Amino acid sequence: MSDLPKSVYLNEEGPREGFQIEAATIPTARKIELVDRLAQTGLKHIQVASFVNPKAVPGMADADQVVEGFRPVPDVHFTALWLNQKGFQRALTHADRLTINGSLNLYASTAFLKRNQNRVPEQQRAAQDDLIAMYQAAGIKVKRGFITAAFGCNFEGDVPPERVVQLVGELLAIAQDHGEEIDHMGLGDTMAWATPESIKRVVGAIREAHPDLELLLHLHDTRGLGIANAYAGLEMGVRMFDTAVAGLGGCPFAGHQGAAGNVCTEDLVFLCEEMGIDTGVDLDALIDCALLAEDIVGHPLPGSVMRGGGLNRFRK
Amino acid sequence: MSDLPKSVYLNEEGPREGFQIEAATIPTARKIELVDRLAQTGLKHIQVASFVNPKAVPGMADADQVVEGFRPVPDVHFTALWLNQKGFQRALTHADRLTINGSLNLYASTAFLKRNQNRVPEQQRAAQDDLIAMYQAAGIKVKRGFITAAFGCNFEGDVPPERVVQLVGELLAIAQDHGEEIDHMGLGDTMAWATPESIKRVVGAIREAHPDLELLLHLHDTRGLGIANAYAGLEMGVRMFDTAVAGLGGCPFAGHQGAAGNVCTEDLVFLCEEMGIDTGVDLDALIDCALLAEDIVGHPLPGSVMRGGGLNRFRK
Repeated sequence: MSDLPKSVYLNEEGPREGFQIEAATIPTARKIELVDRLAQTGLKHIQVASFVNPKAVPGMADADQVVEGFRPVPDVHFTALWLNQKGFQRALTHADRLTINGSLNLYASTAFLKRNQNRVPEQQRAAQDDLIAMYQAAGIKVKRGFITAAFGCNFEGDVPPERVVQLVGELLAIAQDHGEEIDHMGLGDTMAWATPESIKRVVGAIREAHPDLELLLHLHDTRGLGIANAYAGLEMGVRMFDTAVAGLGGCPFAGHQGAAGNVCTEDLVFLCEEMGIDTGVDLDALIDCALLAEDIVGHPLPGSVMRGGGLNRFRK
Repeated sequence: MSDLPKSVYLNEEGPREGFQIEAATIPTARKIELVDRLAQTGLKHIQVASFVNPKAVPGMADADQVVEGFRPVPDVHFTALWLNQKGFQRALTHADRLTINGSLNLYASTAFLKRNQNRVPEQQRAAQDDLIAMYQAAGIKVKRGFITAAFGCNFEGDVPPERVVQLVGELLAIAQDHGEEIDHMGLGDTMAWATPESIKRVVGAIREAHPDLELLLHLHDTRGLGIANAYAGLEMGVRMFDTAVAGLGGCPFAGHQGAAGNVCTEDLVFLCEEMGIDTGVDLDALIDCALLAEDIVGHPLPGSVMRGGGLNRFRK
């Protein structure tokens, strides 16, 4: 009936997503506490901070301390985000603790690219050359490609799948021209336009052009379709997802109207495990982390399984 | 890729579900206000009250007044729920305003049947004979069949699809024995055990045995899979759903932990309309109803699209 994968790989982005958006100042020690707890759940990839201008993002002013504070765990990759050379150089100073990989990015919406980066598509392509040069100068390999607004855009409307296919090809070619190889290609539903059917259309179209390319879905839950969209991805055999514990980063119930975060990690883990797809994650331990995250931010978060609980306790 | 239907039919149960569970006393006039507003959205079937013992369910003590108070709208069916002969007789006194149809019900969990009705399966089957006699005495046709706990049970665990298929056959036979014909068969995910894959398994198994039987899904969103499960139903061609505006009946954020309500009407309408499935419902008008419902109950409700908004405003 479908091509469900046997296992999935989750990129936990909750700490970075969540602590970036929160208005209140969260103590550094509590951020570290959540990272340490997440690292005990079976998650293999945890994005802990972003190295951005603290004037622009006050919640990330302590990024260096968070990175220096967590307890490394074998086989768990701790990562960080950066948006420019300065941020990348800060990340490099923690190369003993962080897994540092290069990432390239094109936009499926010209209007959003203009708004977000003040660039036209040609400039964005050229910027990828500069990024690769920066990575290569530091001895860092490119690993991720990413297409922003791959399913639609508030400033441009619907995005045709063929445009995404073309951008994927361009990004692969840019990497290849520089002797780099993209390990997986992320598709960002940046403004929550995707439906399960559009997920299937876009993933299917990319698969036809690049059958062996590993795809990752970065889904937002603004309109309640996050888990359904993830399921559609699973049906298409997608194995990699960006997620956020408790739905951190979004808080529809506390004033961040419409700014829902990434699809909720424990809800996706529950979906997968109940369908026989291995996540490698202990659901109960993850639910504890979600409740901890809620305690840390001090207001309700959007996750569901953290309230409803798993089912295995009824199966004994 | 799938058998998506061209249109769906939604049974709006929000007023009944929501006002039944709410602790605070909600003024009758406000309940009527919500029903009247829902009747202007394009919804064709609205369950407005349940005729139950007011001592057991204080929130439904004004059921008669609510039913007498709403403004009838042509082609909109206003319905009510009852659990016994007394409630049915109360409903009959409003036959000029309510659409009254008979409903039959078997349980896929013996443990839950015992707990909920204090009956063994044989007694529950016999009770259906009595129900039909009651309906026939009043000149009411049987319309709905329903299987409770069709996907799993907190007190019994997983439910094998073949058990559900057997119960569906039994219920069809009971109706037929009495000269009645079930119009559609509801499958209740009463305790939120379903996954998209189990929806497909159960629906597929029933389809094999009864290819022409119209199925309805009654889904709860306790663990965040409500919309994904509805999507799986749509993929299988299911066209009827019980839903609740704003997710009324569930309130994960205000103390009713784990008691999430039916799948949210406007989230399902959004899913359907974005995939080209006609709901007959005006999404913006329905979002206004969801916000009204939240205002009436006085606390946040679980719906997503009511916060994130639809997409058509960006398409102009």
